[in-house]
Amino acid sequence: MANEVTLLDFWASPFGMRVRIALEEKGIKYQYKEENLPEKSPLLLQSNPVYKKIPVLIHINKPICESLIILNYMDAVWNDKFPLLPSDPYQQAQARFWADFIERKLYDCGKRIWMNKGEEQTAAKTEFIESLKLLEAELGDKLFFGGEKMGLVDVCLVPHYSWFYCYEKCADFSVEAECPKLVEWARRCMKLESVAKSLPDQKKIYEFVLIVKKKMGLE
Amino acid sequence: MANEVTLLDFWASPFGMRVRIALEEKGIKYQYKEENLPEKSPLLLQSNPVYKKIPVLIHINKPICESLIILNYMDAVWNDKFPLLPSDPYQQAQARFWADFIERKLYDCGKRIWMNKGEEQTAAKTEFIESLKLLEAELGDKLFFGGEKMGLVDVCLVPHYSWFYCYEKCADFSVEAECPKLVEWARRCMKLESVAKSLPDQKKIYEFVLIVKKKMGLE
Repeated sequence: MANEVTLLDFWASPFGMRVRIALEEKGIKYQYKEENLPEKSPLLLQSNPVYKKIPVLIHINKPICESLIILNYMDAVWNDKFPLLPSDPYQQAQARFWADFIERKLYDCGKRIWMNKGEEQTAAKTEFIESLKLLEAELGDKLFFGGEKMGLVDVCLVPHYSWFYCYEKCADFSVEAECPKLVEWARRCMKLESVAKSLPDQKKIYEFVLIVKKKMGLE
Repeated sequence: MANEVTLLDFWASPFGMRVRIALEEKGIKYQYKEENLPEKSPLLLQSNPVYKKIPVLIHINKPICESLIILNYMDAVWNDKFPLLPSDPYQQAQARFWADFIERKLYDCGKRIWMNKGEEQTAAKTEFIESLKLLEAELGDKLFFGGEKMGLVDVCLVPHYSWFYCYEKCADFSVEAECPKLVEWARRCMKLESVAKSLPDQKKIYEFVLIVKKKMGLE
């Protein structure tokens, strides 16, 4: 099995973390290949010629790109354990809607938070918090977005939690003060082995970002 | 049935056209409600509070937003006719990949073509043509992206054909000269009643854009 599934990934990528969580939850053994992003491997370039980005899941020599598409694929192929999507079409559409919302908003806002200062940073922070508040409202009183168990939205969102500390330090705010229930939910997810194993330490991410900023001449 | 399905849409939207084509192909009767975008209806605001955008499909009083999510939903609910997605998980992932690629690239590049001039327009045109060339390569010698019949990628891409003339006039180029096989494919799609019925005349789109540009002070 391990020879059948390979994940091309980068440790700090929230998109890669999604796939790692799902692979763990579905109990799929796989080979992990860390990419050196400034010098991408020939395997990555050949597997994702359009975007040249991680994560890529290679299953029996066939590459699947883009984290949301990988998660859909995994649900179709390994559907006996930890279904990511609900079976009801409307619930499915709702889960897809929020997964897509996370995709559009969080990474982009986050990047604008750590790459900018002043007005641009403030605007990004405001949008980031507004987005989290919408997600918090969607969570409501449920344990997980997926209900009693994690589902697609949980798996897509929780990796961003590992970047919260970095954003907080860069833009001087507290996610917990803004969205206490969402942080409570993230901590609940972190108690699951699949999530704890897949997410790096928040401070390690922040240190990594400081190095990147230095390299980019942003500090 | 007609009372069960309502589409909130705007005639010139390539995203709305996708849903119209799929509804036609699947033989679903529906009520069409044209939105006046400067003054959105309470029904639209209530159905899509996050983005406040068309298209929205309302099925038995439940709104589904975002064209790709609507198409997924339609395939799950009305799966007896005109399946949009192939059943093989890998083929399905490939179709999702290209549908997502179209989603990211074409509308954004197109908008940058008609809204800008000079360097910005040229950059957008170059990216637009490069994207179409990738799609043309993916089509290869197949009749449709879906093979012998239209599938998800065809339904997502062909609405953009109705905007080609506008882009050509705004940025002085010929899509056909750049991507003859892709234009041949688009004309093949246009012979299908579902597509011909759902796509407005290219010149009507161009006239509409000229009016919008005037209103925005872009001319």
